[in-house]
Amino acid sequence: MSLIQVINPNTSLAMTETIAQAARAVAAPGTEILAVSPSQGVPSIEGHFDEAIAAIGVLEQIKHGREQGVSGHVIACFGDPGLLAARELASGPVIGIAEAAMHTATLLATRFSIVTTLPRTLVIARHLLQQYGFTHHCAALHAIDLPVLALEDGSGLAQEKVRQRCIQAKREDGSGAIVLGCGGMATLAASLTQELGLPVIDGVSAAVKMVESLVALGFGTSKHGDLAWPLQKPLSGAFQHLN
Amino acid sequence: MSLIQVINPNTSLAMTETIAQAARAVAAPGTEILAVSPSQGVPSIEGHFDEAIAAIGVLEQIKHGREQGVSGHVIACFGDPGLLAARELASGPVIGIAEAAMHTATLLATRFSIVTTLPRTLVIARHLLQQYGFTHHCAALHAIDLPVLALEDGSGLAQEKVRQRCIQAKREDGSGAIVLGCGGMATLAASLTQELGLPVIDGVSAAVKMVESLVALGFGTSKHGDLAWPLQKPLSGAFQHLN
Amino acid sequence: MSLIQVINPNTSLAMTETIAQAARAVAAPGTEILAVSPSQGVPSIEGHFDEAIAAIGVLEQIKHGREQGVSGHVIACFGDPGLLAARELASGPVIGIAEAAMHTATLLATRFSIVTTLPRTLVIARHLLQQYGFTHHCAALHAIDLPVLALEDGSGLAQEKVRQRCIQAKREDGSGAIVLGCGGMATLAASLTQELGLPVIDGVSAAVKMVESLVALGFGTSKHGDLAWPLQKPLSGAFQHLN
Amino acid sequence: MSLIQVINPNTSLAMTETIAQAARAVAAPGTEILAVSPSQGVPSIEGHFDEAIAAIGVLEQIKHGREQGVSGHVIACFGDPGLLAARELASGPVIGIAEAAMHTATLLATRFSIVTTLPRTLVIARHLLQQYGFTHHCAALHAIDLPVLALEDGSGLAQEKVRQRCIQAKREDGSGAIVLGCGGMATLAASLTQELGLPVIDGVSAAVKMVESLVALGFGTSKHGDLAWPLQKPLSGAFQHLN
Amino acid sequence: MSLIQVINPNTSLAMTETIAQAARAVAAPGTEILAVSPSQGVPSIEGHFDEAIAAIGVLEQIKHGREQGVSGHVIACFGDPGLLAARELASGPVIGIAEAAMHTATLLATRFSIVTTLPRTLVIARHLLQQYGFTHHCAALHAIDLPVLALEDGSGLAQEKVRQRCIQAKREDGSGAIVLGCGGMATLAASLTQELGLPVIDGVSAAVKMVESLVALGFGTSKHGDLAWPLQKPLSGAFQHLN
Amino acid sequence: MSLIQVINPNTSLAMTETIAQAARAVAAPGTEILAVSPSQGVPSIEGHFDEAIAAIGVLEQIKHGREQGVSGHVIACFGDPGLLAARELASGPVIGIAEAAMHTATLLATRFSIVTTLPRTLVIARHLLQQYGFTHHCAALHAIDLPVLALEDGSGLAQEKVRQRCIQAKREDGSGAIVLGCGGMATLAASLTQELGLPVIDGVSAAVKMVESLVALGFGTSKHGDLAWPLQKPLSGAFQHLN
Repeated sequence: MSLIQVINPNTSLAMTETIAQAARAVAAPGTEILAVSPSQGVPSIEGHFDEAIAAIGVLEQIKHGREQGVSGHVIACFGDPGLLAARELASGPVIGIAEAAMHTATLLATRFSIVTTLPRTLVIARHLLQQYGFTHHCAALHAIDLPVLALEDGSGLAQEKVRQRCIQAKREDGSGAIVLGCGGMATLAASLTQELGLPVIDGVSAAVKMVESLVALGFGTSKHGDLAWPLQKPLSGAFQHLN
Repeated sequence: MSLIQVINPNTSLAMTETIAQAARAVAAPGTEILAVSPSQGVPSIEGHFDEAIAAIGVLEQIKHGREQGVSGHVIACFGDPGLLAARELASGPVIGIAEAAMHTATLLATRFSIVTTLPRTLVIARHLLQQYGFTHHCAALHAIDLPVLALEDGSGLAQEKVRQRCIQAKREDGSGAIVLGCGGMATLAASLTQELGLPVIDGVSAAVKMVESLVALGFGTSKHGDLAWPLQKPLSGAFQHLN
Repeated sequence: MSLIQVINPNTSLAMTETIAQAARAVAAPGTEILAVSPSQGVPSIEGHFDEAIAAIGVLEQIKHGREQGVSGHVIACFGDPGLLAARELASGPVIGIAEAAMHTATLLATRFSIVTTLPRTLVIARHLLQQYGFTHHCAALHAIDLPVLALEDGSGLAQEKVRQRCIQAKREDGSGAIVLGCGGMATLAASLTQELGLPVIDGVSAAVKMVESLVALGFGTSKHGDLAWPLQKPLSGAFQHLN
Repeated sequence: MSLIQVINPNTSLAMTETIAQAARAVAAPGTEILAVSPSQGVPSIEGHFDEAIAAIGVLEQIKHGREQGVSGHVIACFGDPGLLAARELASGPVIGIAEAAMHTATLLATRFSIVTTLPRTLVIARHLLQQYGFTHHCAALHAIDLPVLALEDGSGLAQEKVRQRCIQAKREDGSGAIVLGCGGMATLAASLTQELGLPVIDGVSAAVKMVESLVALGFGTSKHGDLAWPLQKPLSGAFQHLN
Repeated sequence: MSLIQVINPNTSLAMTETIAQAARAVAAPGTEILAVSPSQGVPSIEGHFDEAIAAIGVLEQIKHGREQGVSGHVIACFGDPGLLAARELASGPVIGIAEAAMHTATLLATRFSIVTTLPRTLVIARHLLQQYGFTHHCAALHAIDLPVLALEDGSGLAQEKVRQRCIQAKREDGSGAIVLGCGGMATLAASLTQELGLPVIDGVSAAVKMVESLVALGFGTSKHGDLAWPLQKPLSGAFQHLN
Repeated sequence: MSLIQVINPNTSLAMTETIAQAARAVAAPGTEILAVSPSQGVPSIEGHFDEAIAAIGVLEQIKHGREQGVSGHVIACFGDPGLLAARELASGPVIGIAEAAMHTATLLATRFSIVTTLPRTLVIARHLLQQYGFTHHCAALHAIDLPVLALEDGSGLAQEKVRQRCIQAKREDGSGAIVLGCGGMATLAASLTQELGLPVIDGVSAAVKMVESLVALGFGTSKHGDLAWPLQKPLSGAFQHLN
């Protein structure tokens, strides 16, 4: 039995549930999903400030997860907040959902489009594309111009906007795949893939399979070089528990 | 039961066996490995000419595999010969082992080194790094300066040279992971990972897990856009069977 | 007397004739053009699958050409199929027509546009731009959305579409030159250059002049390093004749 | 009177003092330096984990600084932790010292070298080079292989190692300038510039002058687009005070 | 008292005056602006030919300035003509206004737009973006399609076109800052910044502050390496005075 | 009869003779070489300052050449001084010898090395590699650390140093071709190609063949877009004759 920790970096429990559902839908028989979110932080992540705060919650959860003996970790926010810091703190693999979705897209198509929430988050996706090496694999980025939590308001409006934007992206971008740019869109991927007739990729499910795979291959995060354990030093104040 | 076709693009059956062994060692319980190689072609692949010929064998096998109802395909040569052509011909995912190993390395470390066989193949790896987006993630490329088939001569000399080069790469490159640059090195990864204390990555096993994951996620190669089925046209001569 | 082999990588004799005509129109007094096409393969090249098959035909012709004592070779399909493999097999220079046209464009203008046939071939041009180093020199890529063989149907429709697209590209892209993205467009370049008042570049004629130039300079493909002769090894089946 | 807040993102007061000294040494007559460090966090920053924690301290100080009416902010750690998040939270300019030193170097020389502390921090510098656009302007990166706080141990050993590494870098790299890769090296720049006869650049002093300049030009961080104020949302737990 | 030489590389005295005004508006109390222009050359700079001629005027003025004991130099034309040559000839810092404006923009926003005069100058800006490393920081380039001297015709038409283009760029590009792409637009920046509510950056004023800052930091152009003094050699004819 | 103007941008007549000799050695039967150099300027070009001055001489000669009815122009200095300005002033093609040699190298080998004179000129070559798109095609740059005119001192010392450096580059760089980085090395290429067994490329001869080819293809510099004729404006002083 393998335990994979899926971390929603924000504090919105409804979104944790959406993410958990997407993760469990694809988990292998031998995998148990431990969906968590930080007890303190931001209710949604829509900028660099939100990400900086969320990163602390991610690190707390990584530490918890390690204590619980999880095999690996997923950071379920499309900006992959705290990813490299989390890798330092982990022995198992740590995968961000933007990373997972982007890697997956390049395996299925020569170019992909991204559909995300607010325009101000586009720059975060652009920076990740550059860091991961996929700038030239991304044909276009789109924002539906609704906040993250609109995906949890029960009205279905945001979901319909995502759908419309995907249809338009398919028609106009010349892309072979679409990446959904928010953890809150995780449960939309399957039906959109079906309806549009091309891979519409949710990073949560993709990341779960990547962690499973890396664990099966016997790999954890490399502890040789710059992702080695954080150097031991006294953390003070609100950060003491991260020691 | 899921069937994954692992294609050795060269005609050396000993290498097909090495590759099959590495594939089976990591296959999930529900996965059956179908290890194949072309009936005609080149006994080893050590340059662009060899790759061009091997690509035809890969396409033949992709077609066979599809007729046998396989779920996905692995191209088990480090140059990923015929990868995009194979994707046009496939409905399931197709993963090359260089692609698989390089992607995997970036998930475990910020930079990796490559250890391969002949110096003349380094340019192929460099071109793949550029195409996949990983030029800046690769710290160094090394060649042991022995031909591919030295890995199958039973002497263990090539294996020892690979080991020495990996040790040296760990010491000098500042990399957190090492990618093995030949399908014939597939069975060395586990013990080198153990001995060196950092991920030494074989693309065959990594690719098998990627195909399993993509299949589990419900994804095949995108048939929208430039990886759509090859346009129907009369193939003549030795290529008729590829229709 | 210098003999230059111009290889049409597809099996359509009408296109071989178009290409031969464009080549002969610019050949120097001392140059004889040997226009050839493979006896087996694909009638047109519109994707990676077609390219993989065509590459074998190219290699066969390179070998023939060498046996006939040609001075150099042109690969007259805009995807430059088999280019590096052909260079391994050749002692003289080998030039692809995409390569020739793109290089030429950068000598005459700071940025160029490309006009090609089917949208699915755009990715091939993009990959070549990246490989050759010209991504930033290309302002835009356009497809007329007609198959390659529409250029040989005698109706003139495809030719008119090319013309319209070039006019539009001149007006909208801010480019100083236009590259024609198909061997079948070779004979259009001169009149379009005249009509549009900017260089409209056909790769066939450009490649012929490049081969002539390299031969005059005393250069063949470098046999030092990774373009050295293919390593001698037993080729089996349909590939024996390539030995 | 203009007030510039110089934030030491770690909790080592000796380093805050070093940084304050470097800042005051170059401050214009009308500028007052407010050197601060977070009350809680990490004593030194030598990896991504340390950076993630330090970023929170930076944000707290940015908020404080704004409440105190400072004109601009300097983040005085070579990894520029929390830079974009801090910009969202600030109305004045925010400058990181890696950013300041790298920009400055490109104004004085065509290529520069970096000399920093631990090898594991090199990847952080590499990522910043890429993000800021200076990958091709950096000839080489060097680490003295001593921790950050060795610069504060009073022995002078680390300082001497920095000096030696700078001398070696001048001789071997072909660079016209050297960037000091740690806030704790700030007070070394002037004497090394003198001794070596080329610009040895400390980011603290460079950043102070940049903030002064931007303020004099009437510029603050752009509040249009993705660096706009963080969206108002309830922060919980240890982060409430950042609202 | 520090003397900064601001060189208008063209011979239009009205533009020299515009530039001087912008420079003086931001100069620190201790700074005196010496605004100069070459006695011979081109009245405006709108292409590479104009730039080549203007570069000689820049070098003459750099030499004059050095003889007059100036602390540093600004090249006040958006193409930064003769920048690296001027650096060889200078001991103090030399800053181009395109360089200054682009660097400044990246400190205030994640992406910026450029608004310049004639479309034919866009390629110059693109080349500078690439050379300075900011290609990915520039969201879009725009030209008002009026010549440089239209800015000095007193009608205000060009100024209004700049304003309109900036408003449009703000709305459409998703940029956080706008760079004015001509020295003749220098005096527009403050009011546009005010009106548009985002930084509209003039390179003249930005460059003056950069020179002041570098001088205050004790830095001149590096004389180690490839910006060392020009090698002494007999210059002949019209260039003798540059010795 | 076609007339090609080969411009030595420096005033050393011995070097003009070397260049003329290399040009004539490869000129086609119908081509006459007009080797010229400016009447005033610098005796050798070893930095950006020298280049700026030489560019004026190049422009003068371009104008002369056009008046004499030449078909095209070669700029025979490895920094390609004034290339884009010259293109504005020319109707025929203008080719720089660095450009010619680099393009040629990429047609013959996957990677090349450069051997040039003084270390301070390496940055010029690096900038050209970036501008032309060949940064990734260049394996290494080397300088023999002798000034340009050492190639004309009759001792043969510089020539022997070039030879030694080429031999070393072949052994160590893994390159398939070597580019000679100075017009004064033009006559060495043939014997070094012979001795080393790989293409050693002189840009002068390569550029002559490129101009011949472009002329034969009916192409001149594009006059559409940013290389259009310089805008008519009154040039003053020493530049009046360039009108």
